[in-house]
Amino acid sequence: MKKPLRPILLAVAVAIAAPAFAQFAKPEDAYKYRASVMFLQGQHMGRINAQLKSDKPSLPAIAENAAILDTVNRLSFTAFPEGSDMVGNSRAKPEIWKDQAKFKQYADRLNGDVAKLVAASKAGDLSATRSAFQSVAQVCKACHDDFRRD
Amino acid sequence: MKKPLRPILLAVAVAIAAPAFAQFAKPEDAYKYRASVMFLQGQHMGRINAQLKSDKPSLPAIAENAAILDTVNRLSFTAFPEGSDMVGNSRAKPEIWKDQAKFKQYADRLNGDVAKLVAASKAGDLSATRSAFQSVAQVCKACHDDFRRD
Repeated sequence: MKKPLRPILLAVAVAIAAPAFAQFAKPEDAYKYRASVMFLQGQHMGRINAQLKSDKPSLPAIAENAAILDTVNRLSFTAFPEGSDMVGNSRAKPEIWKDQAKFKQYADRLNGDVAKLVAASKAGDLSATRSAFQSVAQVCKACHDDFRRD
Repeated sequence: MKKPLRPILLAVAVAIAAPAFAQFAKPEDAYKYRASVMFLQGQHMGRINAQLKSDKPSLPAIAENAAILDTVNRLSFTAFPEGSDMVGNSRAKPEIWKDQAKFKQYADRLNGDVAKLVAASKAGDLSATRSAFQSVAQVCKACHDDFRRD
């Protein structure tokens, strides 16, 4: 199920700049879509963080949340069609469309780091899980610093 | 990846009525969470519907969207903690918490029907895909009719 999904979604992510709004009825939908995805990402990152801060982190609980992140994080990068920066309460900077290569790099880093988080938590390796979680959080922040308005 | 996730999420769904807001910092977050999930569900249902209405439906595109639905639809039923009916713009009826068995039945039907949609579209069976899609749409509507305010 997972394996064939990735290249398809990556292909979608790569193609987002081409036909404006391709998969959205209107630009507002693209904004709502990515805002929805990012809210879910934040919630599941928060649940993992709560586990890691607890006295006895549950690695199965972390793995469950990481698996969800692994699906939803791929969706966010499919929802930035050109021209959807000034819709709704969007804080997307125009730089997203000016520097697609850098934006795409963040997508790849996020996908890679979440894959490590999934693997480490599934393997029950707490130290590797902590380290992968830090990497994921750093990509979130770096991408927001570059591409999100204050 | 998928197999071990299901029982865990189902267990979460079954347990939602017990400790209020367990996994949410505040009731508003539960509302935002399920609203986000349902927006995504609507978008991916819409994409599948658009394919099915086109002259040449792409079964791989349907399968891709069905796989996403298969993950996100499980999330919605985890986001109805007791006491989260009157938050935000929530249209959740109190009946959700009065008739948890029926609510859970809808969750199971949805999971089962989306699994059929995934299988049919992956197998390239257009007729079974149409039929499974209709079933999924019917569960959405039935649950909304019973448990969502106008």
